[in-house]
Amino acid sequence: MKYGITESVKTINSKIKIKDIVLDIVEKKANAIKYFLEGEEFKQAIIFGAYLSGSYIAHTLIKDCEEVIIVDIHPHLKDIIFDERIKFMDLNKLQLELRNKTTINPDLVVDLTGLGGISTDILSKLDPKVLIVEDPKGNYDKKITGIDNTSERISFGNKKGVLKTYRSSKVSKTSGTMTLVIDIITDACKTINEIDGVLYVIPNLKYFEGTIFHEKDVKKFLMELNTPAITVSSIDYVEYELDEALCKNISRVNSYVETI
Amino acid sequence: MKYGITESVKTINSKIKIKDIVLDIVEKKANAIKYFLEGEEFKQAIIFGAYLSGSYIAHTLIKDCEEVIIVDIHPHLKDIIFDERIKFMDLNKLQLELRNKTTINPDLVVDLTGLGGISTDILSKLDPKVLIVEDPKGNYDKKITGIDNTSERISFGNKKGVLKTYRSSKVSKTSGTMTLVIDIITDACKTINEIDGVLYVIPNLKYFEGTIFHEKDVKKFLMELNTPAITVSSIDYVEYELDEALCKNISRVNSYVETI
Amino acid sequence: MKYGITESVKTINSKIKIKDIVLDIVEKKANAIKYFLEGEEFKQAIIFGAYLSGSYIAHTLIKDCEEVIIVDIHPHLKDIIFDERIKFMDLNKLQLELRNKTTINPDLVVDLTGLGGISTDILSKLDPKVLIVEDPKGNYDKKITGIDNTSERISFGNKKGVLKTYRSSKVSKTSGTMTLVIDIITDACKTINEIDGVLYVIPNLKYFEGTIFHEKDVKKFLMELNTPAITVSSIDYVEYELDEALCKNISRVNSYVETI
Amino acid sequence: MKYGITESVKTINSKIKIKDIVLDIVEKKANAIKYFLEGEEFKQAIIFGAYLSGSYIAHTLIKDCEEVIIVDIHPHLKDIIFDERIKFMDLNKLQLELRNKTTINPDLVVDLTGLGGISTDILSKLDPKVLIVEDPKGNYDKKITGIDNTSERISFGNKKGVLKTYRSSKVSKTSGTMTLVIDIITDACKTINEIDGVLYVIPNLKYFEGTIFHEKDVKKFLMELNTPAITVSSIDYVEYELDEALCKNISRVNSYVETI
Ligand SMILES: Nc1ncnc2c1ncn2[C@@H]1O[C@H](CSCC[C@H](N)C(=O)O)[C@@H](O)[C@H]1O
Ligand SMILES: Nc1ncnc2c1ncn2[C@@H]1O[C@H](CSCC[C@H](N)C(=O)O)[C@@H](O)[C@H]1O
Ligand SMILES: Nc1ncnc2c1ncn2[C@@H]1O[C@H](CSCC[C@H](N)C(=O)O)[C@@H](O)[C@H]1O
Ligand SMILES: Nc1ncnc2c1ncn2[C@@H]1O[C@H](CSCC[C@H](N)C(=O)O)[C@@H](O)[C@H]1O
Repeated sequence: MKYGITESVKTINSKIKIKDIVLDIVEKKANAIKYFLEGEEFKQAIIFGAYLSGSYIAHTLIKDCEEVIIVDIHPHLKDIIFDERIKFMDLNKLQLELRNKTTINPDLVVDLTGLGGISTDILSKLDPKVLIVEDPKGNYDKKITGIDNTSERISFGNKKGVLKTYRSSKVSKTSGTMTLVIDIITDACKTINEIDGVLYVIPNLKYFEGTIFHEKDVKKFLMELNTPAITVSSIDYVEYELDEALCKNISRVNSYVETI
Repeated sequence: MKYGITESVKTINSKIKIKDIVLDIVEKKANAIKYFLEGEEFKQAIIFGAYLSGSYIAHTLIKDCEEVIIVDIHPHLKDIIFDERIKFMDLNKLQLELRNKTTINPDLVVDLTGLGGISTDILSKLDPKVLIVEDPKGNYDKKITGIDNTSERISFGNKKGVLKTYRSSKVSKTSGTMTLVIDIITDACKTINEIDGVLYVIPNLKYFEGTIFHEKDVKKFLMELNTPAITVSSIDYVEYELDEALCKNISRVNSYVETI
Repeated sequence: MKYGITESVKTINSKIKIKDIVLDIVEKKANAIKYFLEGEEFKQAIIFGAYLSGSYIAHTLIKDCEEVIIVDIHPHLKDIIFDERIKFMDLNKLQLELRNKTTINPDLVVDLTGLGGISTDILSKLDPKVLIVEDPKGNYDKKITGIDNTSERISFGNKKGVLKTYRSSKVSKTSGTMTLVIDIITDACKTINEIDGVLYVIPNLKYFEGTIFHEKDVKKFLMELNTPAITVSSIDYVEYELDEALCKNISRVNSYVETI
Repeated sequence: MKYGITESVKTINSKIKIKDIVLDIVEKKANAIKYFLEGEEFKQAIIFGAYLSGSYIAHTLIKDCEEVIIVDIHPHLKDIIFDERIKFMDLNKLQLELRNKTTINPDLVVDLTGLGGISTDILSKLDPKVLIVEDPKGNYDKKITGIDNTSERISFGNKKGVLKTYRSSKVSKTSGTMTLVIDIITDACKTINEIDGVLYVIPNLKYFEGTIFHEKDVKKFLMELNTPAITVSSIDYVEYELDEALCKNISRVNSYVETI
C-alpha cells in the first residue's frame, strides 16, 4: 500500500503476479496431459513449442520419459527452459537430424505450436506412438477456425489426443496461455471496478510477446511477468478483494485432452 | 504492423495514443469552463491542481486573463506546465503570499484538486468573484460520495459553478482525467475482442500516477503516455477498427459546468 | 423445480418475485425521505405521482401527517393505493380545489412525477414549507438531462431536498423504480448465466407499464409483478444462487435526499 | 410507437419478432446440414426432435428425400410441423415399428434431441448411411460437457457429421435454438441501453418452453413467439437502432457440420 495523489486515496497491488497466473494455467495444461498419458512411460518425448507452456510441460514429463526434447523455431527460446534435464533443439537442427535418421525416434510427441506452427509433414515423419496436439481455438471465431488445422495434424500415431483449454462461461478467442492470462486479468478488473470505494483499476499488461519474440529478450520477458497483475486506486484496503477476483477468474480455466 | 509469433498472426497498434485521449478529455473540460465564463475577462486567475487537466485549462484561460497562476501542493509539477505564460506557485508559497496579502487577489478561482484536495479555508480567504470547483464524483459510489466535499467548497464567490464530467451510459467512478482514460481504453478493448479474427487485446496501461507522483518524474510520465492505447494480436489488419472503438468511447465523455 | 424438456435438465424459478424488488426499492426511497424529514410532523402532505413508489411513500408518511393526499393525472391510479387512510385526487380535481382555495394548503409536498410530470406552476401555487422533488436522472445521459427540469421545480419552499436513487457501480438511465427493477433483473441474469451447469436464463419481464397506463388495468399489473423475477434452465438446483445474484444487485440501490 | 407514462417518453417495439430470430437460426442449421449433404438424395430420412429446429430442417430436406419422418418423444409436438409432406411418429410408435422391422430403414438420420435425448441404442439399430448428430454444447461449461454424449451417439453410419452452432465472440451455454434466441435478445438489450435517450429496455422473454412442454399448447407457444423481441422506453424514435442491434447479434450465429 502507498498513498495516491493525496492521502485520501490508496494505491494497492494484487499479491497475485502475472507469472502466478501463467503458472496456474500451464500446470492445468500439464495435468491434462499427464492424466491422458495414464502413467505410461516413454523413451523419447518431443515437445514442439517452448513458449509459454512448453517449458513447464516438458518439466512435468521428464520423470516418465528417458529423454525430453523441446524443439522450437526460435533458437533464443532455449533460455525459457528452466529444467536442465530438458534438451533443446531448434527446428533446423531437428530437420538435419531427421535427414540423418539417427537420434530422433520419439514415442511421444506433443505439439504446442498452434496457429501457423509446425507442418503436418514433420509430424508424419515422426509418426509417434502417442501424439497430442494443442487445439489453439478458444470460443468460436470464424477466422481463427478458418486458419486452424488441428484436425489435419492429429492424423498420425496410435493414441491421439487434442489438448483443449477453455475459460468456463467466459470468452477467450484462443487457448493460448497468454490469451488466457490477458482475459483473466481484464475480466477481474471489471469486477473490481464495481467494489465500493474503488476509483480506477489498472491491468498491468503490455505486449509481452514483443519482448520475447521481437526483442528476443527472454530474461526481460520473465521480469516483466514478475509484476502484480492489477493495481488499484481505492479509498479502502482492498488487497483481499483484488486477489479474490483474480482467483475466481483463474479457477474458470479448464484444460483436458480429448481422445480422438 | 508486425508479425506475431508466427506469420499467421499480426501485431497491430492503435494510431490513437494514450496522450490523445488525455488531450480530448482536458479539451472538453476546458471548453465547459470557457462556455460557463461566457467570454468574461479576468485580472487574476488561480487554478488549483496542475495535474492532469490543470495545465491545459490554464493554457486556454490565458487569453482572457491578465495573469494565470497554477498552484499545486507538489513543487515538481511545475514541469507539467507547457505554456510559458502560466505562473507556477507551490502551495507553501501561496500561503506565504496570502499572509503578506500583496500579490494574490484572484477574481477567478478554478479548483481541480478533487478528493482530499485544497481546504475550504483557502477558498474562503480568496473569496473570488467567480469560483469553479471540479466535482470528482463520477457514477454513484457510496464511499467516494462519503469523502467528497464539493458542496462545501462551492460556498464562496458570486458566480459559482461545479465542473462535472461523465461518460454517457458507461460507469466511471470519478471524473478524474486518468480514471476516464483508463475506462475508455478498457471498454474499447472489450468491443475489439469481439471482432472476428482477433486473438487477444492489450490495454497498454500501467500505474502512470506512480511515475509522476511517487517517482516525481514528469518527463518519463509524459513519455509513457506517448504510447498506442491498445495493441492487438489479430489475423486481419484491424487498425481502423481499433481507432473506431476508441473514438466511440472517447465521444461518450461529456463535460459541463452546473451553475449553483 | 420442474423438469425441462428432458429429465437431464431442470427448470428453476427465483424465490424473489418482481414485486419483492419493487418493494425493496420503494422502501429505500421512503426511508430516504423519512430521514430527511427528521421526524417533523405535518398538517397536510401532498404527493404527486401514485405510481410506482408514491403509494408506498404515502403509506409511510401517514403517521407523521394529519392528512396525506396523492395527486395523479390518471384517475384510475386510485386503485394502486392500498392504505385506506390516504386520500386520492386526480389532477383536475386538485386544480379546481386550488382555484377555490379552500381545502388545499400543504406544508409538505413530494413530487415523484419525474420527466414530463407536474408543472412548476402548481408547485409555486402550493409553496409548501418543505418540498421534495425526485430527480428522475440516473447515470448521465445527455438527452434525459436535456429534458429534465428538477432544478426548476425545486425553487419553492423553505426546506428543499432532491430525492436521488442510484445503483452503485452499475448503469441505470433513470431513478424510476421500474427502470431499476428491470436493470437489476437483467444484470442478475448475466451473473447467473456464468454458473456452471446453467443452460439459459430468462428475465421474466414484459412492458408492464403498458398494462397499467395503456390498458389501465391496475389489478392485472399487480398480478404480473407477482411473478418470479428469473427462470432458469439448469442441470443443478441453483435456487440459492438465483436469489443470491438478485440480492446482490438489489443491495446496490442507494437512495438519499440531497439538501438544496 | 405509443407514448409512455407522459408525452415526454415514447414506447417503441422492435420490428423484429422473437419468431424471426428463431427462423434465422433454424435456417442456418438447415443450411449447414444441406451443405454437408452435398445434394445427395435419400430414400428415407428420420429426424429425431421436432422442437425447435426439427420441423424446419425436415421441411428443407423433403425435396431431396422420398420420405421424411420426424420422431419425437412428445406426441403433441406433431402440431409444430407445418409442412404436410412430413410424417410424424412418436417414439413409442417408432419402437414398435422397429420391432416389426417393416417400414423403417432410413439412409439418413438427423438427431436433434440434445442433452438427455435419444439413446445410442436406437441409433445403432437404425445404422443409417449418413448420420448427423447435433452437439448441444455451446461455450465450454464443465457440467454440460459432463452430461453430453454426442461422441458416443456419432459412432454409427458411414458418413458422420456433428452439427455445431455458436455465437461468434459471445457466450451461449448450448447450441439450442431457444438458448441462442434468449442470449441474442439479452445481449442486444445491453447495447440498446447505451443509446442516448433510452430510459430502459425490456427483453420480451418468458419461459416459453413451459407453454409447449408443460402446458403442451403448441398454438399458444407459437403465438407467444409472435411478439416484438424488445420493447424500449425512450425519448427519441429508436426503431432503427433496436433492429440494428438485434441484427448484429443475430449475424453472430454460425452453424456448420463437422465431418467425423
Ligand atoms: N514450425 C515450428 N516449429 C517449432 N516451433 C515453432 C514452430 N512455429 C512456431 N513455433 C514455436 O511455437 C510456439 C508458439 S506459441 C505457443 C503457445 C502455447 N500453445 C501456449 O498456449 O502456451 C512458440 O514458442 C514458437 O516459437
Ligand atoms: N491542497 C492542495 N493544494 C494544491 N494542489 C493540490 C492539493 N492537493 C492536491 N493537489 C494537486 O491537485 C491535483 C489532484 S489530481 C486532479 C486531477 C484533475 N481533477 C483531473 O481530472 O485531471 C494534483 O496535481 C495534486 O498535486
Ligand atoms: N402532471 C402530473 N400531475 C400528477 N401526476 C402526474 C403528472 N404527470 C405524471 N403524473 C403521474 O406521475 C407518475 C409518473 S411515473 C413516476 C415514477 C416514480 N418516480 C418512481 O420511481 O416510482 C405516474 O403515476 C403519472 O401518472
Ligand atoms: N428420446 C427421445 N426421442 C425422441 N425425441 C426426443 C427424445 N428426447 C427428447 N426428444 C425431443 O427432442 C427435442 C429436444 S429439444 C431440441 C432442440 C434443438 N436441438 C434445437 O436447437 O432447436 C424435443 O422436441 C424433445 O421432445
